[in-house]
Formats: sequence, C-alpha cells, structure tokens
Amino acid sequence: MKIAVLPGDGIGPEIIAEAVKVLQRIAQDGFDFTFEFAPVGGAAYAASGHPLPEATLSLAKSADAVLFGAVGDWKYDTLERHLRPEQAILGLRKNLGLFANLRPAILYAELADASSLKPEVVSGLDILIVRELTGDIYFGQPRGRRTAPDGAFVGQPEAFDTMRYSRPEIERIAHVAFKAAQGRNKRLTSVDKANVLETFQFWKDIVTEVGQQYPDVQLDHMYVDNAAMQLVKAPKKFDVIVTGNMFGDILSDEASMLTGSIGMLPSASLNEKGQGLYEPSHGSAPDIAGQGIANPLATILSAAMMLRHSLGLPEQADRIEAAVQKGLAQGLRTPDIHAPGTQKVSTAQMGDAVVTAL
Amino acid sequence: MKIAVLPGDGIGPEIIAEAVKVLQRIAQDGFDFTFEFAPVGGAAYAASGHPLPEATLSLAKSADAVLFGAVGDWKYDTLERHLRPEQAILGLRKNLGLFANLRPAILYAELADASSLKPEVVSGLDILIVRELTGDIYFGQPRGRRTAPDGAFVGQPEAFDTMRYSRPEIERIAHVAFKAAQGRNKRLTSVDKANVLETFQFWKDIVTEVGQQYPDVQLDHMYVDNAAMQLVKAPKKFDVIVTGNMFGDILSDEASMLTGSIGMLPSASLNEKGQGLYEPSHGSAPDIAGQGIANPLATILSAAMMLRHSLGLPEQADRIEAAVQKGLAQGLRTPDIHAPGTQKVSTAQMGDAVVTAL
Ligand SMILES: CC(C)[C@H](C(=O)O)[C@@H](O)C(=O)O
Ligand SMILES: CC(C)[C@H](C(=O)O)[C@@H](O)C(=O)O
Repeated sequence: MKIAVLPGDGIGPEIIAEAVKVLQRIAQDGFDFTFEFAPVGGAAYAASGHPLPEATLSLAKSADAVLFGAVGDWKYDTLERHLRPEQAILGLRKNLGLFANLRPAILYAELADASSLKPEVVSGLDILIVRELTGDIYFGQPRGRRTAPDGAFVGQPEAFDTMRYSRPEIERIAHVAFKAAQGRNKRLTSVDKANVLETFQFWKDIVTEVGQQYPDVQLDHMYVDNAAMQLVKAPKKFDVIVTGNMFGDILSDEASMLTGSIGMLPSASLNEKGQGLYEPSHGSAPDIAGQGIANPLATILSAAMMLRHSLGLPEQADRIEAAVQKGLAQGLRTPDIHAPGTQKVSTAQMGDAVVTAL
Repeated sequence: MKIAVLPGDGIGPEIIAEAVKVLQRIAQDGFDFTFEFAPVGGAAYAASGHPLPEATLSLAKSADAVLFGAVGDWKYDTLERHLRPEQAILGLRKNLGLFANLRPAILYAELADASSLKPEVVSGLDILIVRELTGDIYFGQPRGRRTAPDGAFVGQPEAFDTMRYSRPEIERIAHVAFKAAQGRNKRLTSVDKANVLETFQFWKDIVTEVGQQYPDVQLDHMYVDNAAMQLVKAPKKFDVIVTGNMFGDILSDEASMLTGSIGMLPSASLNEKGQGLYEPSHGSAPDIAGQGIANPLATILSAAMMLRHSLGLPEQADRIEAAVQKGLAQGLRTPDIHAPGTQKVSTAQMGDAVVTAL
C-alpha cells in the first residue's frame, strides 16, 4: 500500500514524523506500507516555484492515500494568490476529486476543561461534519473582476464568484452523509440557506429525495445562521451535519473550536474510488514550528482515519485511536492541551507514547 | 417624526406593543412621534396575499424610521418562496437601500450565567458586527436553475447563485464600520475569504484602501472560518467586525448566541439617507406567541437605536438603555432570561418596568 506523505510547512514535518512512526509500528504487524515523501505548499514553492508541483500531484494521484501535514507561512502571504501555499490543498482536492470531507468534532473527557464552553454544554461532544469539498463557490466558474454589467452599480468595478451545485454532486455527498449517520446515531442535519439561495433550495430538495433511501435515518434541515447558533447553544443535539463547501468551511471550524483542543481533531477527504487525503484540522502554526512542542495527535488520528477509510484496516484504526486515548489517560499532554496535574511532553514524546501503547 | 410600525408574526405584535409604549413615554417629554401601523410577513400574506404589500412598502419608504417586530410562522412554510414571510424583510432591505446592518452582541453582567460559554470567556462582552445587507450572494444576479453549461457536470441539472460586490458598495459599508470603530475601541476586523473568493480579495483590497482615511483605527483581516473559531475561543478580542451579507448572517447569529440571551439584542439597518429599520435580533418564536411571555427588551433597545441613528435623539436613546439596565438590576426577568433569585415577569410587566424607570 503506497502512502504519499506531504509534510508541508510550519509544524507539518514534525507532526507528520510522529504519524509515520505510528504507521511504521502498525506495519510491523505484517502490513506493507510504502511511504513516498514529496514537498507541498510553501516548502514546494521555495524548492521549485509552485505550491503543488507536478511530481507531487502525480505521486498523490498514484498513491492509495495521502498523508498531509499542513501548509502556510507568513513568508508566503505576499505571493500572488495562485502561488500561495493553500492553493496546493485546493488543487489536490480538485485533481483527486476529493468531494467528501469528514470532520469529527470530539471532546475527549480528559480535555473537557480546554473548551471555552461550559462543561455541561460540551462534555461527551461527538459530532461529525460532512462537508462537500469540490463544488460550491470554491470552484464555480465564472469568477473574476470586471465592470458591473447590470444592477444598481452598473458600470462600476466589481468582483464576482459563482455558487453552483449540480444534482450528482449533491446526491453523492448526501449518500456519504446518510451512510455515516447509519453508522452513528442515525440523525442527519442538512444545513442550507434555502430561504435565500437557489443553490441551497436545490440542495435541500435533493437531500430530501436521497433521504427516502435511508428511512432509518432521521433527517432535518436547518438554516446556516441557525446552525451557527445551535452549535454554540446546544452542540450535543447534533449527530451528523452535512453541508456545502463554503458553509462547511465555517461550521466545521466553529465546531472544532467548541472542543477547545483542535490539536486533537483529524480529517479525511475522500473521492469516489476510496482514495483519500488525511490531515489534521488545525493549521501549520508557523509561530511554534521547529520547537518540538506541536501536538501530533490530530495527525496520528488522521492516519487512523486513513487506515479505516482508504486502506481497509479498520481494526488497526481502532487500535491507534485506543492508543491515543491511553496516552491521554496516562496524563501526557503537549503544551497546547496541558493543564495542571498533567505531564507536559514534546511532540516526539507524545508520538512515542502512542507507539508504546500500541 | 413618522415611525412606521410593522409588528409582523408570532411574538411580533406583543414585543412591538411594549416598544411603542416606551416611545410614547419618551414622546411625553416633548417629542412628536406619529406611529403608523401596517401588516408585514405572514400576517400581511394572510390579509392580502403578499408578505410585503405595496401599502406597507410605501409607508416604510415615507417614514423617518421603521420599527419592525418579527416575521415567520410554520403555517407559511409551504408557500412558494416569493410569498414566504422572510421575503418581506429582504424586500424592505432592498427597496429602502438598507445596506448597513449594525448588530451589537453585548452580554449584560446580570445575565452572564445565561451563556453556554464560561463566564471568564464572555463576561463584559461588547462587540459590534457591521454586516453589509443589500449586496453579495443575497441579491446577485444571475441565479436560478438550469442545465450545467460547462464544468465537470456539464449537461446535468444544477442551481446557481452569484456573489458580487462593487467598489462603491464595499466603500460605503467600510466607512460605516470605520466610523463605528472610531466611536468605540478603534479596532476593526474585516472578515473575508480572500484566499478562495475573488469577491472577498476585492473586499479586502478596498477595505484596506478605505482604512487609510482612518489612521486612528487599527484594521486587521481575518478569514471567515477563523473568525467563526475566534468568536468561540476569545470573543472579547473583537471590537468591531465588518463583513459581507452572507458571512455577516452567519457570524452575527453566532456572536449573538455567545451571550445566551438573544432576547436582549437589538439591530439597526440603515440606508444612505439615515432612514433605518429597527428590529430585534431574534425571530418570531411562534411557539410562544400570544402567551405574554416574550422578552420585549431587544425590541425596546431597537427603539433606542432608532432614536440614536434615525431620529437624532441620542440622549433619549441613552435614557432607554439606562432604563433597561435598571429593570435588569431590579431583578426583573422574562422567562427566557429567568434564573433562580430573580423575579419572573410578563412581556407587559417588563415594558412597564422600563417605562417606570424612565
Ligand atoms: C486553506 C483554505 C483554502 C481551506 C478552505 O477554505 O477550504 C481551509 O480553510 C480548510 O478548511 O481546509
Ligand atoms: C430571514 C433571512 C432572510 C434573514 C437573512 O438571512 O438575512 C435573517 O436570517 C436575518 O439575518 O435577518
């Protein structure tokens, strides 16, 4: 099984090293993992002038799965947009057809205090956000700058983007979400803005239609503004949330911050062939890069998702997740999740603890 | 001074009655307010077949200010979109040119417990969201359903909307936001998604440019996903936030829910002539309508904003706000904000208490 490893920028290389360490420990039990490394993001731009070099993209395409660190650094902020590190991630999503982004927001009992929300509001939080990742206003054409061709500001300079969703795009993400709900508490909330947007009235209609094939899942619909409120007010009422690319970007980050420990949250981005890109939900944190203090657990948990969703090794995924739990139970904490009474450890020590627990 | 009063649906009539009572008390001190009532939303649809009848719209246009209750009720959920209650509010915004929506999120010390966030995270919260209200994907043409003319799903049924902002639209909302920041703590966060959207790269460029006229205001830029996180993590770091219509819809609701008491939060929507529409941030709550238990304070505080922003009576606005504070300090609470040790009062009793405090 070929794993493309793209460490990226900032803390990317450090956290990726720990996840690879954990996967190598799993491999010892008789699995054949080949790791092929390639540069991505700012690191790739610095090396070869483009954040997603052709070689990196073909490696990713040919691999069974991509393990991705993080991209972005202040030093690339002044580049033109098409050269900036985050273009690599948009390019990988689009070129690999990674339409289904799974973003769990789980609050570990040991870390309940880290949340800015009251313990009773978030303890035991376990929700899954299914975000469509290759459509919507992220990629919709036409887009650009022009002179306004009509409207109240005709003749003025303007910029514009196009929000679009086609029937098959909505159907396939709806199926992913309903199936995910079937494997959980069988409740699915589809988030839209059907009261204002044509795109999301269509979205709502089609999700409702697909829902008829999943009579065991209880489907409801919520406007995005209300969802942003309910996530703050009573997040535990949600089981699975499905939404479009733009709303999903906002709500999944909001949901992950409810836990107070985004250093713990993995993500998976899947295509129709089962290939996937796995990355922590947090960013590249250039401010702490190279100090050995970054939390590798989100990346290690992303590796677990990779075993489950792309490599057909769900039991090994369970084992990694249990090992992470064990590390927490032992009181080991990187600085981002450290609290009085627990033991502060480095990035590598945390990775080692997971390996030991395995 | 002519005030158009549009009570609307659900609890709208009850909360509006209290705000009018308070304004009538102010009028006794020598101000000439004329109140003209008109139906809007579901109530207007039921009476005359349209949520925003011509007569209601012309009244609103001819008034110095509009005092608006709330619209929406489950019984209108099955109507075609253009007849649904919320179309009235979109129609009023567009026809009156109400481009600047001011949404304070304030946590009253007396109500700190109501928040789902930890007290230390939200106590003393006082942020202002300035949301652009007549542009963006809310009104952008073209929009609709069609057969996809291009792209990976060419030939498939699709729906689409257009996000657009012209230079003058961004400039005028930026000026409103910078001026608001000048009257507060002189910090402005412009929220965009410049890393993905053409519209919001343009937004960021123009807000930066306008900022040169306000050297006393410290401007920063934040991506919308990060803003959704920071509102949960450390909301007190914000002073004024300015953003587009769609992001503002989501973030202003998220911010209001941080307080846990959206029954307390007013809003103002202003046009270039100083006319404004004033409404509570909460909805029509049809589930509790007619029971005399709704919280009228958001509407009363909206009336205060009306005195300040459209009627040139800032001192009277201050007086109303102080009277609301006094009612809270006396321990009076409608059921939505009731807590042990405080006195539960009805909608009308709360309104009366404010009048007495005046
Ligand atoms: C970096 C950016 C383009 C990206 C997005 O908006 O999708 C990020 O915020 C994410 O959620 O992965
Ligand atoms: C009712 C709806 C059209 C409206 C909006 O999306 O603007 C509402 O959510 C609001 O924020 O006032």
